[in-house]
Amino acid sequence: MITGKNYVGSQLLAGGTKTYKTINPQWNIENPWTFTEASPEEIEQAAALADDAFKIYKNYPAAKKAAFLNSIADEILELGDALLEIYCTESGFLKGRAESERGRTIFQLRSFANMLLEGSWLEATIDTAIPDRAPLPKEDLRKMLVPLGPVVVFGSSNFPFAFSTAGGDTASALAAGCPVIVKSHSMHIATGEMVASAVIKAAKKHQMPEGVFSNLIGSGTTLGTSLVKHPLVKAVGFTGSINGGRALFDLASQRPEPIPVFAEMGSINPVVILPEALEKNSKKWAAVYAGSITLGTGQFCTNPGLLLGIKGKELDQFSKELSEEIEKIAPSCMLHPSIKADFNNGREKIRSQNGVTTVAEYKEETAPNYAQQTILSVDGKTFLENNVLSHEVFGPFSIIVQCENLEELTAIINKLDGQLTGTILAESAEISNYDTVVSALQNRVGRLIFNGVPTGVEVCASMLHGGPYPASSDSRFTAVGIHAVKRWVRPFSYQNWPDELLPEALQNKNPLNINRTVNDVITNKPI
Amino acid sequence: MITGKNYVGSQLLAGGTKTYKTINPQWNIENPWTFTEASPEEIEQAAALADDAFKIYKNYPAAKKAAFLNSIADEILELGDALLEIYCTESGFLKGRAESERGRTIFQLRSFANMLLEGSWLEATIDTAIPDRAPLPKEDLRKMLVPLGPVVVFGSSNFPFAFSTAGGDTASALAAGCPVIVKSHSMHIATGEMVASAVIKAAKKHQMPEGVFSNLIGSGTTLGTSLVKHPLVKAVGFTGSINGGRALFDLASQRPEPIPVFAEMGSINPVVILPEALEKNSKKWAAVYAGSITLGTGQFCTNPGLLLGIKGKELDQFSKELSEEIEKIAPSCMLHPSIKADFNNGREKIRSQNGVTTVAEYKEETAPNYAQQTILSVDGKTFLENNVLSHEVFGPFSIIVQCENLEELTAIINKLDGQLTGTILAESAEISNYDTVVSALQNRVGRLIFNGVPTGVEVCASMLHGGPYPASSDSRFTAVGIHAVKRWVRPFSYQNWPDELLPEALQNKNPLNINRTVNDVITNKPI
Repeated sequence: MITGKNYVGSQLLAGGTKTYKTINPQWNIENPWTFTEASPEEIEQAAALADDAFKIYKNYPAAKKAAFLNSIADEILELGDALLEIYCTESGFLKGRAESERGRTIFQLRSFANMLLEGSWLEATIDTAIPDRAPLPKEDLRKMLVPLGPVVVFGSSNFPFAFSTAGGDTASALAAGCPVIVKSHSMHIATGEMVASAVIKAAKKHQMPEGVFSNLIGSGTTLGTSLVKHPLVKAVGFTGSINGGRALFDLASQRPEPIPVFAEMGSINPVVILPEALEKNSKKWAAVYAGSITLGTGQFCTNPGLLLGIKGKELDQFSKELSEEIEKIAPSCMLHPSIKADFNNGREKIRSQNGVTTVAEYKEETAPNYAQQTILSVDGKTFLENNVLSHEVFGPFSIIVQCENLEELTAIINKLDGQLTGTILAESAEISNYDTVVSALQNRVGRLIFNGVPTGVEVCASMLHGGPYPASSDSRFTAVGIHAVKRWVRPFSYQNWPDELLPEALQNKNPLNINRTVNDVITNKPI
Repeated sequence: MITGKNYVGSQLLAGGTKTYKTINPQWNIENPWTFTEASPEEIEQAAALADDAFKIYKNYPAAKKAAFLNSIADEILELGDALLEIYCTESGFLKGRAESERGRTIFQLRSFANMLLEGSWLEATIDTAIPDRAPLPKEDLRKMLVPLGPVVVFGSSNFPFAFSTAGGDTASALAAGCPVIVKSHSMHIATGEMVASAVIKAAKKHQMPEGVFSNLIGSGTTLGTSLVKHPLVKAVGFTGSINGGRALFDLASQRPEPIPVFAEMGSINPVVILPEALEKNSKKWAAVYAGSITLGTGQFCTNPGLLLGIKGKELDQFSKELSEEIEKIAPSCMLHPSIKADFNNGREKIRSQNGVTTVAEYKEETAPNYAQQTILSVDGKTFLENNVLSHEVFGPFSIIVQCENLEELTAIINKLDGQLTGTILAESAEISNYDTVVSALQNRVGRLIFNGVPTGVEVCASMLHGGPYPASSDSRFTAVGIHAVKRWVRPFSYQNWPDELLPEALQNKNPLNINRTVNDVITNKPI
């Protein structure tokens, strides 16, 4: 069933010479399949095909692209349990997680299909002519969003479905009208190949142009570098580490023609627990926080890695309760031996800093790639002075910072790098006394949460998954929700263009019956 | 009246040691005022003040920001003819142009004020909670656009009002909620100081926080480099040359925290004249084209510098008619001796290439900084093979490319760098036969014009002033029209946030009565 080959458009090719194998982290052994990395010719061919496909695909009507997206969802479901099994084999996740992540992926694809059919995402904006305006006539101007061109997608390690081959970046780019070349994540290439086969099957069913989708294999940086530097590639989507994302951002920025990179990178997702919440609800928040830290073995970009509170007996009590909760939870498997090693190294690096103490740690022996969840603690002054303490440790890890007072807590927030999320745990009555904390946190994050946890990223239009650098490489966009499509489009104006030659979205009679802004008023009426 | 000092917030400071003078290009002499370049301390102070101001200004209600913008417009008008005279003295433009550009600037400021009062620009998007959703409850999520932080604006040489001190970049950034630091364009620092005085007066009248606006002077690259690299600066707006814009883009991309740069740079704005239009209307188009090339001494970013047609007697006839028109028009003054020198050098560089001939040139002697409009010609094959021929010559210049056939014409379009505009001159019946030309042109430009000229950039919501690199550094944004505000904002989500603590735009009762997307439906109703 798994061929180990690259999809260069719909062709399965393996002209390269380097091979690669994935790991089963639960068993800590190599998986049976041998994957052949894409050759330079295959990379070139995928880019050329994507560029050819773009000229055709960009003009497809919304309904045709929507049918394609829905068909990808159908074909993924059609792969049934075989797909879930391979997902589990390559990720170490259990079947429940596989199913829910597949559900999310299907939902995303269908959300973008619905967005296409609804049509207002195009931001169609029309200003009609005023021929007798003095001193100069006003010309007819009509604007809408158009696709950028071929997009390269770098899948994530931690969401082999939802942020990978046919995940949010791919779905949003295809919805935009952009062909996609996926660099398959090297930890789950078999999963990637199966999902890619579903995309290719859907593309064939709906007569999509050859090259609208390719899926290439590469274990090092050569494939990614070649793709990002390729002149026919017009944008890049990435989910992963700061080092990886920044390297791609730098490559893309230094091209003769720079191209946009949306990289969703690291985050320690600060949580601020206010005094009354500590006093009245420490037990509840300890349990909730422990659950959030260990969810998915802590392998979420929104994992809360930093808890800020004012020092005192209430915070000590919370630490104790958190410790009890943490030790109750059975450890689980990480995605890869290298991720487990990074977790241990990152944790020990922080633990070895001056002033850091251990609050809680799961101490029993575990299987090799299982992570022992850990909570450390440090005082605010030490945290402020030592940048190492705010490094992300990917996995079930958090550090509690005991701040001297509110000023110190606010100073810590102001000094933080950009974050995906910030959370305030508070009693309703007290939060209005903490304006400066909220305002400081708002400046540093993409999403602000009240009395909840940052894990659990709802797929909806109001979600912002991104944030100030390095949470993302461009805070002006989101990776989740239908607005993720905006990363891959540009506004485009027609001046005095003949009505019958305009795209339907901009024609006078509004044949798509979509919401448009006509002379500054939102309406779905014809002109 | 002109102090020659920097506005560091509302303070007039001149602690620096380097001085500078502007030129009167009409008289080719130095102007009387001496300007003192900003000192490193003044740059630092302007950045710190802008950061302080941001914390306050970002939370101001729309009405307060709108009143500030309208007040800037009022104060500019209040400066009366004295401002227009200084504008003419520093730019070489005549009073009519000064008046119309001031009108455009006022209109822009009021457009952004109206946008703030109308409110839908915030893209308020609400998904309400579904507490009983299985398997997990849906949280309440609410998203809107929030400002990025202090913005640095680099004014243009060719629009001392509309794309400078209080031009579109400044107006859109202030509307967004971002403090602005202007690097005054070194060719018109006195004009800049007067306009800055109007901004400062308006800021005082409306109790804006100190540092919401600064205006700094610097003749070399030190000031610009310091500002773009400053950690408190969060975005950059620029209008000017490719070299200048790219240098700023590179600096901003290479910062530890990269920041967005919207640079509107070079463009030769290709015009395609189709065979029937050539045959039936060459005389009309020759007159229109000649007018467009020479408007504002050709010093528009949208000046049409390239005309593509199929070779033959009709194109020869058009060239002859264009030549007659061009020679009828009296030359006018360029902005600066260095711009005149660049015009001559650029034109001669192209004229000296193999295969280039002169079609038309104004031959009589002119004053030193007046430009002699020039039309050159070359065949398609030569143009395709020599990149020098597609370099922008800023000024009243155009090159006619005589293409062998439609394939060659299309190949030329495909090879062009990104452009602000593309124009098709055609008879209505013929354009539908040129799908491939239109499609190719669409890929390379930001705005497509039918039977018109690219000069004349209407300020309205449907305008796209930008385009693929190097027309702009990011084709996903526009520099003109209210959507220019999107360059300076990011979406931001609140999860489960208490209603009374949300910004008014997101509160249940919709106190601002704005259009919002609530559970995927656009409505101004309360929740």
